[in-house]
Amino acid sequence: MFKLAEDSNYMMPVNFGGAGGRPPAITYHDVTSIQVAYETDSEGLAAFIPEPFQMLQPVLAIQYSMCRRVDWMTGGGYNLISVGVPVVHAHGGERIDGLYVLIIWENRTAPILTGREQTGMPKIFADIEDHHQLGDTLLTNASYEGSTFLKMSFRRTKQMSPDELKVLSQRFGTVNAFGWRYIPNIGRPGAALSHATLFPQEFVYTAAWQGEGQIHWNALAPQYEYYPMSALAGGAASKAFGQLPIKAYGECLLTHGSLVLRSDLARQLG
Amino acid sequence: MFKLAEDSNYMMPVNFGGAGGRPPAITYHDVTSIQVAYETDSEGLAAFIPEPFQMLQPVLAIQYSMCRRVDWMTGGGYNLISVGVPVVHAHGGERIDGLYVLIIWENRTAPILTGREQTGMPKIFADIEDHHQLGDTLLTNASYEGSTFLKMSFRRTKQMSPDELKVLSQRFGTVNAFGWRYIPNIGRPGAALSHATLFPQEFVYTAAWQGEGQIHWNALAPQYEYYPMSALAGGAASKAFGQLPIKAYGECLLTHGSLVLRSDLARQLG
Amino acid sequence: MFKLAEDSNYMMPVNFGGAGGRPPAITYHDVTSIQVAYETDSEGLAAFIPEPFQMLQPVLAIQYSMCRRVDWMTGGGYNLISVGVPVVHAHGGERIDGLYVLIIWENRTAPILTGREQTGMPKIFADIEDHHQLGDTLLTNASYEGSTFLKMSFRRTKQMSPDELKVLSQRFGTVNAFGWRYIPNIGRPGAALSHATLFPQEFVYTAAWQGEGQIHWNALAPQYEYYPMSALAGGAASKAFGQLPIKAYGECLLTHGSLVLRSDLARQLG
Amino acid sequence: MFKLAEDSNYMMPVNFGGAGGRPPAITYHDVTSIQVAYETDSEGLAAFIPEPFQMLQPVLAIQYSMCRRVDWMTGGGYNLISVGVPVVHAHGGERIDGLYVLIIWENRTAPILTGREQTGMPKIFADIEDHHQLGDTLLTNASYEGSTFLKMSFRRTKQMSPDELKVLSQRFGTVNAFGWRYIPNIGRPGAALSHATLFPQEFVYTAAWQGEGQIHWNALAPQYEYYPMSALAGGAASKAFGQLPIKAYGECLLTHGSLVLRSDLARQLG
Repeated sequence: MFKLAEDSNYMMPVNFGGAGGRPPAITYHDVTSIQVAYETDSEGLAAFIPEPFQMLQPVLAIQYSMCRRVDWMTGGGYNLISVGVPVVHAHGGERIDGLYVLIIWENRTAPILTGREQTGMPKIFADIEDHHQLGDTLLTNASYEGSTFLKMSFRRTKQMSPDELKVLSQRFGTVNAFGWRYIPNIGRPGAALSHATLFPQEFVYTAAWQGEGQIHWNALAPQYEYYPMSALAGGAASKAFGQLPIKAYGECLLTHGSLVLRSDLARQLG
Repeated sequence: MFKLAEDSNYMMPVNFGGAGGRPPAITYHDVTSIQVAYETDSEGLAAFIPEPFQMLQPVLAIQYSMCRRVDWMTGGGYNLISVGVPVVHAHGGERIDGLYVLIIWENRTAPILTGREQTGMPKIFADIEDHHQLGDTLLTNASYEGSTFLKMSFRRTKQMSPDELKVLSQRFGTVNAFGWRYIPNIGRPGAALSHATLFPQEFVYTAAWQGEGQIHWNALAPQYEYYPMSALAGGAASKAFGQLPIKAYGECLLTHGSLVLRSDLARQLG
Repeated sequence: MFKLAEDSNYMMPVNFGGAGGRPPAITYHDVTSIQVAYETDSEGLAAFIPEPFQMLQPVLAIQYSMCRRVDWMTGGGYNLISVGVPVVHAHGGERIDGLYVLIIWENRTAPILTGREQTGMPKIFADIEDHHQLGDTLLTNASYEGSTFLKMSFRRTKQMSPDELKVLSQRFGTVNAFGWRYIPNIGRPGAALSHATLFPQEFVYTAAWQGEGQIHWNALAPQYEYYPMSALAGGAASKAFGQLPIKAYGECLLTHGSLVLRSDLARQLG
Repeated sequence: MFKLAEDSNYMMPVNFGGAGGRPPAITYHDVTSIQVAYETDSEGLAAFIPEPFQMLQPVLAIQYSMCRRVDWMTGGGYNLISVGVPVVHAHGGERIDGLYVLIIWENRTAPILTGREQTGMPKIFADIEDHHQLGDTLLTNASYEGSTFLKMSFRRTKQMSPDELKVLSQRFGTVNAFGWRYIPNIGRPGAALSHATLFPQEFVYTAAWQGEGQIHWNALAPQYEYYPMSALAGGAASKAFGQLPIKAYGECLLTHGSLVLRSDLARQLG
């Protein structure tokens, strides 16, 4: 018979073995990111943030990353687009600043599964085109079953100096990503698991450019607004984002470097 | 602020809404399946079955299904290949016969997520080719990141009569699929959730053929044998299946029809 | 040394062998099609038709086909979306009515190559979603590198009777598809081959529905308007179609059946 | 009516416009290549080389390239695996050394079409995995409809010095690629076009490593050996390559840099 070891972690299917001990930090050796942030309507955005998180600024921070040389994925990689909001998590005397992650689209299933189940990151699938680069302009888009719901572009205007890179690493190098892990009851309403999570991440930048970014949202067809496709295709999210106004773009960046996911420091909150 | 309703079910991302009440049964209107079963080594196979399940026969039942007109997926669909073992679940006076599902590969992410999180079905991603049909021969294969790990073929020899179809529906029309839902602790060993599950399924056959099936397993490269890719790419499973001998093929079938997943009857076991 | 046989046909790469004799007719055993036609601006449309073809009606006939059980493709298949215009080819006393094919998008490369090189069909690649079916509504879309350029829907309202199917086969069962085969000179302007082609096709309908169709064009990004991507991504075509008005929809159909491509009757015209 | 301009080049579909003048050289700004060459059986290999090419060495030179920032493809890219043989083309007093290209697999259709029609490069489609990198080992594979036919790996052992890079550029920086452009007659045997081609290419290396390469061929299923899938899926080629012995590996390289395709110098030979 098969037996689960209590000092190990597993992922489904469990029957073929897990891994002993505490989860290790994991390294992504080659990451290219485009970050575009904009100010939007405060009340509209706050409606998506659960207690006890408190929104610090009415800002949507959208990040495209092309991740390659990912050790745990046999040296392969994937693309992602995440949408976060600056928040503070204040609970029982502890106060942590970070980014509440509203949604992450990724174009491979394996990191979607680890993210959802191991750290409560709200990852779902989309086709995310490897970015194109024509001169100083970078472009990408995201689609679901052939329907484009997001177009993103960036025009790089100025490369950062080594000193500016250092400052950048100090300001943005460590990110406290917050999620909400939810696993439903089976065959009846309510949750088997439902709690906030913390998942720290560390970037090391080897090159960066300032520039101008642009975001264009497109709602999916109405049939994607019904549960569970509203959640799993991002139907509800892409519609909601499209209805939030873009009041003003903030600082936009293109970066190259590596990333360490601190699975060893991830934890359940509250 | 966003608040989770207690009388609803959600899937991540939760922030954009869930669905009230008990989960409904869901219909797949157009399903083509190839079923190939074979006897293998009893001891080797039993090593993958967790307590309190008891193996009834040392048989691997492999099923390819091309699912289309799936209502919850906006009328779209996906392909799957499942591997199960006939078992009985005996617990506290209750005794249920069914199929313990060792693994399910699927080529779309959304049903992988609902299966894992809502009913503990051990679903992971693979590229699964829509079956080809040349005369009476049907062929398909499954691959991960470009590496073929399973080839499957079926030669149909005799179409079933309406009377035989009725008998088939009585014998195989209802399947008690068993899984094991496991969600790990965050940042430390052990499980946040770990339990057996039951997920009943009902097939209605509109046409069926008997015939001869063939299965050929191929282990993925060694780097896919390390956790978590051993689980998430099926590296460990495809290697294990390749090492279990094919002693004798059992009855093989090609069927057309529809399928109802009884999410309303699914439940946690034990 | 390798030698080309003069009584054979080859496709690149030629070095591994061709096929002797006249090309055979080829059968597609399982084809589901949605046909949507609409009247548009006569002058605007005529600008895309080369001499000696003469436009018979200012109509764009758009056809989505999901082709399966294609013998020459080892029993597999592909999806296509074609756009044609009713024309007559009058040349040297011969007069043939048919459909001038402005463009065909397909989601597999092999039939694109045979179509372009063997019969001058203007086939290019797009991602074409297998149609979804929700109740009586069928939906599909086409995209290039993640950008949707065409959405197509059909609501079936009335199934045809056996008598109506017979009439349908008489009216639409045989189609003279016209193309223009063009192969450029190498390293300098002008054509190495440039001529009209005829490629007859025969449909056998096993079921059909009347209904209401809808088409929505979306131009690709401006960078797809430059040669050769204007041709190879359909950038110029999708922009042109989007600028032609939809004056009135004509008869729209959903059909199931099989298709014979009369490669044996295909020929160079003029 | 639409009219073709004689001082322009077109690609099908021609109706939406071409480009005037001589084709320009085109730049690929970001190319990563793995080159693995091995000695094989002289007689077996020569059987695939057409007159008037003469094989210089019984060597198969296999190159994987991940091409990005390709200007003509709107800044996107594609992967390719080419197989060539060192030859000389001697004709009418002219003698050109180069590489006769037996086959090129690519994972995007647009460059397959330009290559075949504009320069006679024998390009066909395959799924080619972006290479993985785990430490010093790079891996990739190629598959057709889910069947792996080629696995390729490279372990980098020594990075080249700036001086060695210079020597490398002198030795390998310019490649005369030879192809055979063949377009068949329509509806009858024989060729409408059939001739050798020359397509010069220039590499600029920015980094390179020596190392050890490995190639593993796998024949596709027998149904892929029939024309035209023998040509268009590489069924005949992958079978032929698998039957040619690997006698000894030659120099293997990993390179980064850019590539200029000299479309302006391409020409018909003979």
